[in-house]
Amino acid sequence: MPTRTVFFISDGTGITAETFGNAILAQFEMKPRHVRLPFTDTVDKAHQAVRQINHTTEVEGQKPIVFTTLVSMEVLSVIQQGCQGMLLDMFGTFVRPLEVELGLKSNHRIGRFSDVSQSKAYHDRIEAINFSLAHDDGQSNRDLEQSDVILVGVSRSGKTPTSLYLSMQYGLKASNYPLIPEDFERRQLPPALMPHRKKIFGLSIQPERLSEIRNERRPNSRYASIENCRMEVSEAEAMMRRAGIRWLSTTTKSIEEIATTILQELQPERLTY
Amino acid sequence: MPTRTVFFISDGTGITAETFGNAILAQFEMKPRHVRLPFTDTVDKAHQAVRQINHTTEVEGQKPIVFTTLVSMEVLSVIQQGCQGMLLDMFGTFVRPLEVELGLKSNHRIGRFSDVSQSKAYHDRIEAINFSLAHDDGQSNRDLEQSDVILVGVSRSGKTPTSLYLSMQYGLKASNYPLIPEDFERRQLPPALMPHRKKIFGLSIQPERLSEIRNERRPNSRYASIENCRMEVSEAEAMMRRAGIRWLSTTTKSIEEIATTILQELQPERLTY
Repeated sequence: MPTRTVFFISDGTGITAETFGNAILAQFEMKPRHVRLPFTDTVDKAHQAVRQINHTTEVEGQKPIVFTTLVSMEVLSVIQQGCQGMLLDMFGTFVRPLEVELGLKSNHRIGRFSDVSQSKAYHDRIEAINFSLAHDDGQSNRDLEQSDVILVGVSRSGKTPTSLYLSMQYGLKASNYPLIPEDFERRQLPPALMPHRKKIFGLSIQPERLSEIRNERRPNSRYASIENCRMEVSEAEAMMRRAGIRWLSTTTKSIEEIATTILQELQPERLTY
Repeated sequence: MPTRTVFFISDGTGITAETFGNAILAQFEMKPRHVRLPFTDTVDKAHQAVRQINHTTEVEGQKPIVFTTLVSMEVLSVIQQGCQGMLLDMFGTFVRPLEVELGLKSNHRIGRFSDVSQSKAYHDRIEAINFSLAHDDGQSNRDLEQSDVILVGVSRSGKTPTSLYLSMQYGLKASNYPLIPEDFERRQLPPALMPHRKKIFGLSIQPERLSEIRNERRPNSRYASIENCRMEVSEAEAMMRRAGIRWLSTTTKSIEEIATTILQELQPERLTY
């Protein structure tokens, strides 16, 4: 597979540059070598970046790809003028046409978070992460009514990483509850959840895949056996159907895909801005 | 502040579209109203999206902004032809010039994760999240040598959200350890950490800010008092200096900024691809 060096230059963390760049590069059958140059926020650092890019060009005999999310025009223009790589200016490309359409000048603010200790949105996001941790795996019913989302499902169906993703990415307070044999015997959702049915979303999974995942943790246990996984999944799905709660199968889905589907279905109030 | 409706259309989750779009929109003093249209992966759904955009245009009397990350040319062209909003085609804009530079055709693959149950990278990422949870707050020394990063700092200096972010975003196994009075008395890092000094990174924080954060949890406690916070922070910083470990102050920094700085300093092997 062809290789290519790819630079990500930002005056902030460069995380947006890299996330977006990765999505673009995933369209090509090639092996990118990543070089991250975050916090490139002075003309000096811009000249340093240019030297590094041009050195790579000489050594490798081909142009590196250079993704930039630079808010400072001064820094950007040093790179535009000196760099021998292929420059993809991700901000400028869209900011300038937007200035025309919106009739506004861009404010050239760096990064999403300038001083986070002053930001309510950031504070709420950290609170949401703490909430999701404290409400992982049915650990606590305290303040359960504050949840934006309550996930249910059998052990290892993907509840924990999905809850954490919802809080980290969207600042949502996500609780999760395991469905266990006692619930199946009672043939009802855990009683603490009953008043919050509208916020509940179920995760299910193919028994074969569940057995695989559980076998990594507890090889050859009854817990991981295909018979037990089949029983638990079938009981859990029957219970979710009876309770009329929405659910999806996580078998082939990433936490991003699971989270997106949950948001579409539940439309949590906190996200309607 | 002017408002504007902003659509995010993707044939995948649309998370990349929204993250990147948010970074661009943050450059303007306006209040965007977000409409997410993920999984727009058929011509039918594209026509539905066009109807929704054009309806918004009529009702609001101004063009909505439409960010797309569409891999399917068929879906994209329905939107290009029918939509009255201002279209910002985030993939096409960069993919086509890259095809020329790389001499490769793009493969039009949707999303980062096609079937995650088959992906080793995805499997490792979920393992990293589980590892970070199991190694939160010094809970376990088991397999500590597998950590890519070990964070230390006083309680509420930001270790937990940063560890989770490192695992979620980068698939790094991040452990974290609180520095507590026993450590200060012994004047040494927790003994379990000694063999892994190269992977340790410290988080510190201004005593005033720490006291604020702790007061939210335990108002008027000794734990939250400014005197105690001053003492703990000063002991912790002295200890980190003596041990020769790198550290930063998290007072005004987001978890993204903290994580980026840690990666720059530690350069964990797993990320050198």
